[in-house]
Amino acid sequence: MPVTEMLRTYPADLGDVDREALTRCIEECVQCAQTCTACADACLSEADDQLPMLRKCIRTNEDCADICATTARVLSRHTGYDANITRTLLQACMTVCKSCADECEQHASQHEHCRVCAEACRRCEDACRELLGTLG
Amino acid sequence: MPVTEMLRTYPADLGDVDREALTRCIEECVQCAQTCTACADACLSEADDQLPMLRKCIRTNEDCADICATTARVLSRHTGYDANITRTLLQACMTVCKSCADECEQHASQHEHCRVCAEACRRCEDACRELLGTLG
Amino acid sequence: MPVTEMLRTYPADLGDVDREALTRCIEECVQCAQTCTACADACLSEADDQLPMLRKCIRTNEDCADICATTARVLSRHTGYDANITRTLLQACMTVCKSCADECEQHASQHEHCRVCAEACRRCEDACRELLGTLG
Amino acid sequence: MPVTEMLRTYPADLGDVDREALTRCIEECVQCAQTCTACADACLSEADDQLPMLRKCIRTNEDCADICATTARVLSRHTGYDANITRTLLQACMTVCKSCADECEQHASQHEHCRVCAEACRRCEDACRELLGTLG
Repeated sequence: MPVTEMLRTYPADLGDVDREALTRCIEECVQCAQTCTACADACLSEADDQLPMLRKCIRTNEDCADICATTARVLSRHTGYDANITRTLLQACMTVCKSCADECEQHASQHEHCRVCAEACRRCEDACRELLGTLG
Repeated sequence: MPVTEMLRTYPADLGDVDREALTRCIEECVQCAQTCTACADACLSEADDQLPMLRKCIRTNEDCADICATTARVLSRHTGYDANITRTLLQACMTVCKSCADECEQHASQHEHCRVCAEACRRCEDACRELLGTLG
Repeated sequence: MPVTEMLRTYPADLGDVDREALTRCIEECVQCAQTCTACADACLSEADDQLPMLRKCIRTNEDCADICATTARVLSRHTGYDANITRTLLQACMTVCKSCADECEQHASQHEHCRVCAEACRRCEDACRELLGTLG
Repeated sequence: MPVTEMLRTYPADLGDVDREALTRCIEECVQCAQTCTACADACLSEADDQLPMLRKCIRTNEDCADICATTARVLSRHTGYDANITRTLLQACMTVCKSCADECEQHASQHEHCRVCAEACRRCEDACRELLGTLG
């Protein structure tokens, strides 16, 4: 992904942000958003008798996809940086990734897409926590 | 907007949510997202000598549009409700609306679109705070 | 919605766009996006035996919500207008609104949220077609 | 990116879609969306005297980010597939990627982020065209 190249070519001062933590967080958010969109759709195609117990999983996948996508966008902007916005949004992103990972893990042994998705959510949760830690 | 009708026709239990506060918050988020997108673009069309001082306004408008749009989506879902996700996201939405209202207000006397946008952000900030208050 | 006010306060030339058709199209796109998000979630909360036949409805609702939201954003920008982008996107939006209205109508007699949603999609389809007609 | 893994674990029939073309198109859309968001923000941080000539670039970047993100989402869903939606949306995505690549290329020699972004847009335009070709 060109995340690193775009950070490198940003024409103004990036401040004292941890570039590695920022890069990783953007990449994980972008991937988690795509994976959750695909997992919600895969759940929807499971057998009839599986659908009722996948309701909450589909819903949380949708929320996680939306919040991760928005977090990736906000983190991709550096002009007029506002630490309060970044911090509260990362908190929300961490929360939804944890919820979605927990939910997907409950179906992971039966549905492989939920296993893959739980892993993506867990990586994104970690990346948000790490970046949040560097913001002071 | 059909927000009220969609809440009324939701086929399952909505829990003890405050429907009025929820309806208002969804409506304000949706309107604030559209207004911020339009305000960022209006700023971009201001005279050459105005552009440098509108940088932060454009950026915050973009963040506010993204976070409000995502908040409206999450609040429009009721299946498998997770209070932690709603609460942290409302916190982020309130934060970005306050920042965007503060920023737009600084340009309100000179640029009318910033005045309209500041008002939309302030209404959305209030609606988020009110809904957050009802969540206990 | 402040759509009209934001168009009125746009600081540059809007060209010879039909403001009424544009305003209506933005408003319908914004409302259709919210309604489709809510309808997908309402379908997901229907009784167990209803879920299998609502698969396609949920999926089309998700697509329609995404495309309408993006169309509303693109239509809210006027700076550096590119007719080719607007035209092809309106075509995609009209297509997904028609598909979603057709699908929701099949469930309208049984699920009231599908009736409300079909009407929102049909209004949005009309508004896209009308705006497209004015673009020459 | 877990795009391939999510396609592999999809529980129902994917039809006779070209999996390689689909995977590549989703990946390019996701990357192009992130790159365009970052390029719009990088343009916004250029020197005061550069801002006026970057207006159209910022605007087209925003459109391209929105349309690519939506295209990635729609392509990540396979349940209840509707060829008309996919086809018209790919057409819109190809159009905006071409416009954005053309615009960014004009600033590529002066602003490196525009060079990186033009390349991402061109790759995405190609991937959309290729996938569109396989849809028949």
